[in-house]
Amino acid sequence: MKIQVAIDRVSIERAVEIIREIKDYVDIIEIGTSLIKDYGLESVRAIRKTFPDIKILADIKTIDEAEYEFRRVYEAGADIATVMGGSAIATIEICSKVAREYQRDYMIDLLEVSFEKLNVLKQFKDALFCVHLSADKNGIGLEALVQRYSKELYGLGHLAAAGGITIDTLPVIMENHFEVAIIGGAITKAQDIKEAAKMFYEKVRG
Amino acid sequence: MKIQVAIDRVSIERAVEIIREIKDYVDIIEIGTSLIKDYGLESVRAIRKTFPDIKILADIKTIDEAEYEFRRVYEAGADIATVMGGSAIATIEICSKVAREYQRDYMIDLLEVSFEKLNVLKQFKDALFCVHLSADKNGIGLEALVQRYSKELYGLGHLAAAGGITIDTLPVIMENHFEVAIIGGAITKAQDIKEAAKMFYEKVRG
Repeated sequence: MKIQVAIDRVSIERAVEIIREIKDYVDIIEIGTSLIKDYGLESVRAIRKTFPDIKILADIKTIDEAEYEFRRVYEAGADIATVMGGSAIATIEICSKVAREYQRDYMIDLLEVSFEKLNVLKQFKDALFCVHLSADKNGIGLEALVQRYSKELYGLGHLAAAGGITIDTLPVIMENHFEVAIIGGAITKAQDIKEAAKMFYEKVRG
Repeated sequence: MKIQVAIDRVSIERAVEIIREIKDYVDIIEIGTSLIKDYGLESVRAIRKTFPDIKILADIKTIDEAEYEFRRVYEAGADIATVMGGSAIATIEICSKVAREYQRDYMIDLLEVSFEKLNVLKQFKDALFCVHLSADKNGIGLEALVQRYSKELYGLGHLAAAGGITIDTLPVIMENHFEVAIIGGAITKAQDIKEAAKMFYEKVRG
C-alpha cells in the first residue's frame, strides 16, 4: 500500500518545509484543496519547482469546467488531479480525456456519492477512486464507509481512502484492498512530523 | 430580478477592467471558481480592495472543510460564498452558521443534485439556492432544468439560475420566479462588454 500525505491550511513555505521532512517516507504528496483555494495554482508550481521528482496530487476537486481546470493543473506540474464523483458524467469524461492526453492520472473523489451514482462511475476504468469521509464529519463512520465502499468497488483496481485516517485505523484500510491511504493531520499536525511519517511508512511496509 | 455576472478564466487585472466596465449595470459580481483556483483568495482581496462597494459572490464551491473555507473567504471580502448541494449536510450546516456569524450570505449550488437531496436541502431556509446546469453540458437542457427545479423550489424564496444563460433564454428565468440570473460568457465574452451588460440590465428592468 502507498501513503499519500495531504498538506492543508499552511503557507506554501510551510508546505515546502513539511515535504522536505517527510518525502523519503511517503509515495504521493497531496497539495490540499485549501492550498489551491488560498494560493491558486502557484501552490502547485512552487512545490513542483522545489521538488521536481516527487509525485504530486493536486486536490482541485473539479466539479465543472473540467477541460480548463485539468489542463491548467497538469501544466502547473500535477501528476494526479481530482474530480468530484458528484459531477456530471460529461465532466468526468473530459477529465479522463485530458488525463490521457497529458499521460497523467485522475482521481474520482467519492465524497457523498450515492451507490446509484457509484455504479455509473464504474465505467471509468482508468480512474483512481477515493473513498472519502467528509472532514466535517470528524472521522465518525470512517471504518463502516471504507468497508462498504471497498466491497462495492472490489476488483476495480485503484482504490484510495481518506478522511481522518490515523495509525490506529490504518489496518482497516490495509485489510480492505486499498492501494493508497491518504493521511492528513495524523502526520502534518504531529509533534514530530518526520517521525509520524516514518511510523506510517513502517506500518505499511510491515 | 437581479443580474449577477460571473467572471472566469481571465487574469485578476482583466477581471478588474471588466468590472469597471459593467458595474453600473449589474447587481452582483461573481468571482468565478477559475479565478479562485488560479489565483487563490488574492482574487477576492484584490477585487474587494479596488471596489469597496460592490456586492461580491465568491464561487468557492465548498464541498468540505466549510469552517476554514467560509471564514477565509468572508475575511477576504466576499459578501456571498457558495457551497455545493452535494456536500454532507454537516458541511452546509457549518456554512449556515459561519454566514450568520459574519452576517453574510451563502448560496447552495444545486449542480447535479438529485430531487431526493433537494428535499433535504430545503431545511436551509436562510440559503440562496442556485439551479445550475453544468458548463460541461454546453447549455443543453437549461430551460427544462430551470422549469423543473423552480417548481420544486417554489416558495422557498431566494432562487438563482446559472448555466449558459443568454439574452434569448433570459425570459425563461424571469418567468420562473428567479431572483437572480447568473450570466457568464454572454456578457464577459461579448464584443462590447458594457453594451452587453446594459442589454441585460434593460431587459430585466423592462
